[in-house]
Amino acid sequence: MSIADSTSKPEPNVGIAGAALETLKAQFGDRLAVGQAIREQHGHTLTWIPNQPPDAVVFPQSAAEVRDVVNVCAAHQIPLIPFGAGTSLEGHLNAPAGGISIDLSRMNNILSVNSEDLDCVVEAGVTRKQLNSYLRDTGLFFAVDPGADATLGGMAATRASGTNAVRYGTMRENVINLTAVMADGSIVRSASRARKSSAGYDLTHLIVGSEGTLGVITELTVRLYGIPESIVSGVCPFDTVEGACDTVIMAMQIGLKPARIELLDPLQVKACNKHSKLTLAETPTLFLEFHGTEAGTAEEIERFREIANDFGGGTFEWARETSERNQLWAARHDAYWAALELRPGTECFVGDVCVPISRLAECVKETIEDIHQSGLIAPIVGHVGDGNFHVMPLVDMNNTVEVQGVTVFFDRLVERALRMDGTCTGEHGVGSGKVKYMQAEHGPGIEVMRAIKKALDPLNILNPGKIIPM
Amino acid sequence: MSIADSTSKPEPNVGIAGAALETLKAQFGDRLAVGQAIREQHGHTLTWIPNQPPDAVVFPQSAAEVRDVVNVCAAHQIPLIPFGAGTSLEGHLNAPAGGISIDLSRMNNILSVNSEDLDCVVEAGVTRKQLNSYLRDTGLFFAVDPGADATLGGMAATRASGTNAVRYGTMRENVINLTAVMADGSIVRSASRARKSSAGYDLTHLIVGSEGTLGVITELTVRLYGIPESIVSGVCPFDTVEGACDTVIMAMQIGLKPARIELLDPLQVKACNKHSKLTLAETPTLFLEFHGTEAGTAEEIERFREIANDFGGGTFEWARETSERNQLWAARHDAYWAALELRPGTECFVGDVCVPISRLAECVKETIEDIHQSGLIAPIVGHVGDGNFHVMPLVDMNNTVEVQGVTVFFDRLVERALRMDGTCTGEHGVGSGKVKYMQAEHGPGIEVMRAIKKALDPLNILNPGKIIPM
Repeated sequence: MSIADSTSKPEPNVGIAGAALETLKAQFGDRLAVGQAIREQHGHTLTWIPNQPPDAVVFPQSAAEVRDVVNVCAAHQIPLIPFGAGTSLEGHLNAPAGGISIDLSRMNNILSVNSEDLDCVVEAGVTRKQLNSYLRDTGLFFAVDPGADATLGGMAATRASGTNAVRYGTMRENVINLTAVMADGSIVRSASRARKSSAGYDLTHLIVGSEGTLGVITELTVRLYGIPESIVSGVCPFDTVEGACDTVIMAMQIGLKPARIELLDPLQVKACNKHSKLTLAETPTLFLEFHGTEAGTAEEIERFREIANDFGGGTFEWARETSERNQLWAARHDAYWAALELRPGTECFVGDVCVPISRLAECVKETIEDIHQSGLIAPIVGHVGDGNFHVMPLVDMNNTVEVQGVTVFFDRLVERALRMDGTCTGEHGVGSGKVKYMQAEHGPGIEVMRAIKKALDPLNILNPGKIIPM
Repeated sequence: MSIADSTSKPEPNVGIAGAALETLKAQFGDRLAVGQAIREQHGHTLTWIPNQPPDAVVFPQSAAEVRDVVNVCAAHQIPLIPFGAGTSLEGHLNAPAGGISIDLSRMNNILSVNSEDLDCVVEAGVTRKQLNSYLRDTGLFFAVDPGADATLGGMAATRASGTNAVRYGTMRENVINLTAVMADGSIVRSASRARKSSAGYDLTHLIVGSEGTLGVITELTVRLYGIPESIVSGVCPFDTVEGACDTVIMAMQIGLKPARIELLDPLQVKACNKHSKLTLAETPTLFLEFHGTEAGTAEEIERFREIANDFGGGTFEWARETSERNQLWAARHDAYWAALELRPGTECFVGDVCVPISRLAECVKETIEDIHQSGLIAPIVGHVGDGNFHVMPLVDMNNTVEVQGVTVFFDRLVERALRMDGTCTGEHGVGSGKVKYMQAEHGPGIEVMRAIKKALDPLNILNPGKIIPM
């Protein structure tokens, strides 16, 4: 639906935002939307958390316009929630206290590609697929690949990663600098374009992962990599989860640099077989990819094969052709949709924890036992090279007992990860959904976070209620 | 000299610290030192900035003892300056307002080595050479290598790096988590041992590079890497600085992953020839190292050679034997001492800027012209893969006109780096020496840093006067 349509709908409950909306309407005209559908779309996204729409959605086109919105929200002390592509999983974009959703999707210009420096400068609304499409003829690519076609601003705000992180890093390693509008309206560039610096506090990393609670990201410089000469993907079945994990640990120890190592548990393999028409053995399975020169990838594959043999790995199948590789990774990226088909009519809650890789097999095994004991249908996929894995229980949302049971299951999952010196979220972020775990994970560190939040956003207008427990 | 000796010297001017010293003396006994020599040693280090000794030096042996010192300093509102190995270059450890130097060198236990996770947990006073010596039989190594044998706590506090950063990253990429005593006495662990996390503000990166102004680092988990099967070093002369830089840019673009790429200008080569008894051509020269498998390094060398040929590179000389490699890198690491011999009786000011690599040749060339026009003797060495380089004017410290001239030369160097979207310091940090450049580099970002400092250290007791301009 267009914004013009949405604004012609009945007036929403604007709450305390009324006066602010008047001011914004005067400046933004039909780039301010208050229709119910668009508000609900901006208050929900892919999360399982119930919809909490903002009072309005505004579509700025420059950092100066973002600053104007921030200043209006500050003047009226109403919440402001940055919005990218709306693909977050933990209720980052919910508006529990109403306020203004600031949709950055129209700030989607690619400002410069600096091929000699292997970086580019983009507005926050550029999506990762848009960027890679733009880069196609340069021989370069942007490496971070969460499942969704998220915006780079949103990915930075949630410290996103994906299958490539084991080689290329997460947004933490891929954002060189960013520009953000702070709560006081100042427009701050966090760093220069130099690859390293010791000049003061690391504002880049402070804002990466801050989920819109410290500033609104409007622009960022991200790293690019040369497209490797040789890309080889493969699939290897294992007898046990431990065998798969031990293979990965040994491979990393001897210095192999896989671009991707994904673990699928037997249930997820079954789902992928059905959804993507594969014929894989339904056992713990690694999906792999190596990037390098022809000789380099050949050598890495051979070494990996030897290690896998030692740990109960079955026959490797390798795919060198682009079409074969794409089929494999499409199946991996469709894991969520494949999982849904395991139990039609349900919704998929996506859990996300990360532990030291030495504890991964143990953590996955305990989790599978818990799934069985809980009577859940919940496949597992993991970015195993990072120690990060997702559990995806399929939940009948009309069955409150079942919903409650899954919530408690996730509490145990997080408790298990923390006990193993891990984190409650490897890549999905805190949002609304994981605020309750922050105290247990960070202890007195929460007070440091709270002090920073209070110092930089004393009116608590920037995405309030997220990250920091009240 | 021993501490017992130092405490028997005449009483120092204890200033406002008197009452605090009484309290600390009662707890720490002869682990509190107030002798002039030890105080001066702790107020100076390797910097060219004049000595500003603290009122006393205390040697804690645990985080709890560090907390006690912090609490005493807070109660008396006196400065507290964390001290590691005393190898910083920009006056980080000077005590312009007196106070307590908290020497962490006795907290030097290696707490655990987690080989499956490729990390280890150490107390802040462990030095990098101590750690690598300890790791010798594990097949693993710690990669960050500033010239000095600094402590890991100090290296984290200054976001140090070195020759290996182009492949293995700086302390920014190598600290997984840290424990710090904050100004309010709380002991905060910044993150778990998981390789990635999206759980809230990135306290690790906030404290890395904060130079003791936000907290006292007492413990850290750092990344380790497997010692590569094959290490090959080489030297290649170039006709021009541009040729050397363009070779590096092209090599990085096609995906080569050198472990080290160091540029020496003709004057530095001359100095190294004399000091380390080499016979290199006195032209712009690259020192290189590749890490990988036998086949991998052979392939990288061959490709690098082809690129260098295209950009005016002369004959490569390769060293595969450990002794040859060590000789080469000893010469590189002795660059500072070699430089000093160019003009006996002088001191060496070490400048440190970093620019996007596409601007490096231009920045180095302009700087060499400036050196010539200024009549300075100032060799240049650079971590060229990062765009980071050092200029080392040799200065007669008794000639105030000359000292003033070098100061103005450095102002121009920094102004040049900032104009090229670089930073005033790639790896040496801000300390006292570069506070004056922070406003120009960060603009409104300085207010964000100031707000954070004020929120986390409201009494301004933690290394006051560093990083943030008054």
